[in-house]
Amino acid sequence: MRAYEIINKKKRGYVLTADEIHYMITGYTIGDIPDYQMAALLMTIYFQGMTPQETTALTISMAESGEQQDLSGLVGIKVDKHSTGGVGDKTTLAVCPIVAANDVPVAKMSGRGLGHTGGTIDKLEAIPGLRTDIATGEFLQIVASHGICITGQSAKLAPADKKIYALRDVTATVDSIPLIAASIMSKKIAAGADRILLDVKTGNGAFMKSLQDSQALATAMTQIGEGCGRKTLAIITDMSVPLGNAIGNALEILEVIEVLRGQGPKDLTTICIELAANMLYLADKGPIEKCRDMAVEAIASGKALEKFAQMVEAQGGDKAYVLEAGRFDVASVIYPVLSPRSGYIASMDTEGIGLCAMGLGAGREKAGDIIDYRAGIIINAKTGDHIAKGQQLAILHASSQRAAETAALKYLACLSFCDHAVAAPPLIHE
Amino acid sequence: MRAYEIINKKKRGYVLTADEIHYMITGYTIGDIPDYQMAALLMTIYFQGMTPQETTALTISMAESGEQQDLSGLVGIKVDKHSTGGVGDKTTLAVCPIVAANDVPVAKMSGRGLGHTGGTIDKLEAIPGLRTDIATGEFLQIVASHGICITGQSAKLAPADKKIYALRDVTATVDSIPLIAASIMSKKIAAGADRILLDVKTGNGAFMKSLQDSQALATAMTQIGEGCGRKTLAIITDMSVPLGNAIGNALEILEVIEVLRGQGPKDLTTICIELAANMLYLADKGPIEKCRDMAVEAIASGKALEKFAQMVEAQGGDKAYVLEAGRFDVASVIYPVLSPRSGYIASMDTEGIGLCAMGLGAGREKAGDIIDYRAGIIINAKTGDHIAKGQQLAILHASSQRAAETAALKYLACLSFCDHAVAAPPLIHE
Repeated sequence: MRAYEIINKKKRGYVLTADEIHYMITGYTIGDIPDYQMAALLMTIYFQGMTPQETTALTISMAESGEQQDLSGLVGIKVDKHSTGGVGDKTTLAVCPIVAANDVPVAKMSGRGLGHTGGTIDKLEAIPGLRTDIATGEFLQIVASHGICITGQSAKLAPADKKIYALRDVTATVDSIPLIAASIMSKKIAAGADRILLDVKTGNGAFMKSLQDSQALATAMTQIGEGCGRKTLAIITDMSVPLGNAIGNALEILEVIEVLRGQGPKDLTTICIELAANMLYLADKGPIEKCRDMAVEAIASGKALEKFAQMVEAQGGDKAYVLEAGRFDVASVIYPVLSPRSGYIASMDTEGIGLCAMGLGAGREKAGDIIDYRAGIIINAKTGDHIAKGQQLAILHASSQRAAETAALKYLACLSFCDHAVAAPPLIHE
Repeated sequence: MRAYEIINKKKRGYVLTADEIHYMITGYTIGDIPDYQMAALLMTIYFQGMTPQETTALTISMAESGEQQDLSGLVGIKVDKHSTGGVGDKTTLAVCPIVAANDVPVAKMSGRGLGHTGGTIDKLEAIPGLRTDIATGEFLQIVASHGICITGQSAKLAPADKKIYALRDVTATVDSIPLIAASIMSKKIAAGADRILLDVKTGNGAFMKSLQDSQALATAMTQIGEGCGRKTLAIITDMSVPLGNAIGNALEILEVIEVLRGQGPKDLTTICIELAANMLYLADKGPIEKCRDMAVEAIASGKALEKFAQMVEAQGGDKAYVLEAGRFDVASVIYPVLSPRSGYIASMDTEGIGLCAMGLGAGREKAGDIIDYRAGIIINAKTGDHIAKGQQLAILHASSQRAAETAALKYLACLSFCDHAVAAPPLIHE
């Protein structure tokens, strides 16, 4: 087998065998195949696409390139969840406790935020003392004892994906649906869950801006999951407005606690219940309607909040931050953004709002940047809302007056207004 | 300007500016842009193609990456000729003396053979003493004195093309018409001629197997020539059978001498006169019919042969090899290939026949291989010819009985026979 022949075969539109894909991925990971040949193959895949069989083989090769988590020692059906990312997406932190409160074990690895999107691990770390670098043994023990643990993704998971992603980033081959799907799924497969729920975001704050692309990604990932023998469901949810009202790490934890208290924003609560219900459904807990009731009941009974507090404590955090109000540090500058006019909010540049929060210190421009956990935005009016001139559109949590003023201008530039009533976008597309 | 943005722009189907192309080519040549980004761009070009403006800009950037020959000191219109290569293509060696005999200066750089194709420089070197590594000063002086010199291509010409070609060779991006056209033309432009005649070969012994691809390449190269301000003509000629009867370096020189004596094979003579006529036409020597007469006359008068002998002598060779018979060394084994049946030759695998000659030692499998100038094939029957069982199809010139026997089997495998009359392919397609 030769890399040249494999590139050429794909270039001419033929389907690669699993062996050929495996040869390229393992060869590249150990350094036998040079960057330029992998770059040529990636660009070929961008143009030619991949069949579900090819994408599955690619995913398996990447998943097998490093450590694979073994969850077989845990009792019950292990269900994982993945969101393709967006602005204000704190669902994992509410959904996992709801699911765990219904006796489905959640052994979850999550990532950090970059650019306009936040990351579950960053949000969790807003709780003082909470550890997210939990080694496998302790991780499994916490799940066995408490039914839930959320840790940072191991650097040893899917090293092939890491190396290929870095190359895609400099060769303009990031935006290929088979490559995106295989990248996400390789980590999910290596993370060891039996079944997988995918939350594919769509809209101007998502990586996939169009519904069509989101559908294609959802289909590709579902096919891979099934191809790898893991039952997989995908839900396409809206990201044309930020999810919930809070953006920023501590602010989002507070909003998660509101959801778990039954007092969260309606859009976020609805999505969390739907995702939790689907995870319970995947865990064979009954028909979807029954699973929805179970999710609602876990909130109403206080069991989901209790589960979250248990997890925080088990991971070394202070559960008082979850159970008592007023514990989190507050930003030094609280700055309202006022409406320059009356009318309706016609649309929100959600990615722009995410970048605005990043500018306040809530996110990272590049990997390794320091996060200000207090910083962020509380949104008071969203697409479809009627607003009066001078009404508060949002409240910025900033480290300085100057940062707040800069962010306020950016925030306003992300909104468009109109005079006629506008419908809010649907929460769940499919 | 960033390489990433340029790759991405081309990938999305936009047209690159000359500045963007120049940035990529110069950056890559000096090592600022890594192999993997150039590989991604090359594969993008394979899929997206290039406009004539882009191909011209690419050609100019590559031509300007190294030395550019200045022929302005030579009196008259300098016309260059390029063949895309094939089997038995010794036209340059006959055409250039015919043109020079008509007082059009020929300052020509040529290449070496590889794989199934021969190279003009290798053929010339079959003449003992003849030098093909002539430095610029002497080169220009020989052309000024004798009107003709054929030397090897300077390694300093178009280094960008050399580096890019090596990368294309390992990333499966050789077979892109814009890249092929720009590669050829960058060297022609740097070689300094005022006008350019392109002989684009088509058929199973050419790089372009289909007429459609050959037409596309001819169009692309002509557009580049015109875009660079060099008047350019292209002729598409047949390479579905070997050109002339001789394959192999000394054997081809002997055949060139036959053509210049007016005793050459009809197909080869016809093509040589047509190419010479077009070069004379490009040099403003009059209408094409008049130029054809001039070419014929240069042969009939013996002036073309005399010019060839002059050139050989000026380049350090022994002109007795041109003017007297029986001078060249002959291979130790002369081995006839006999027809296994009677009938007609339906087709010839011309590339296979080229590889058969290579196997006898007449060509190189890889750059740097040693050539046996005596080795080769004399073809006695070509596509369309009627043959009797046991008739000589070809005569192999080999270094050993064993090499001859192996080659004879290969040669026969390159022929297909049939029982009905078959037309010979046309010599000139366009």
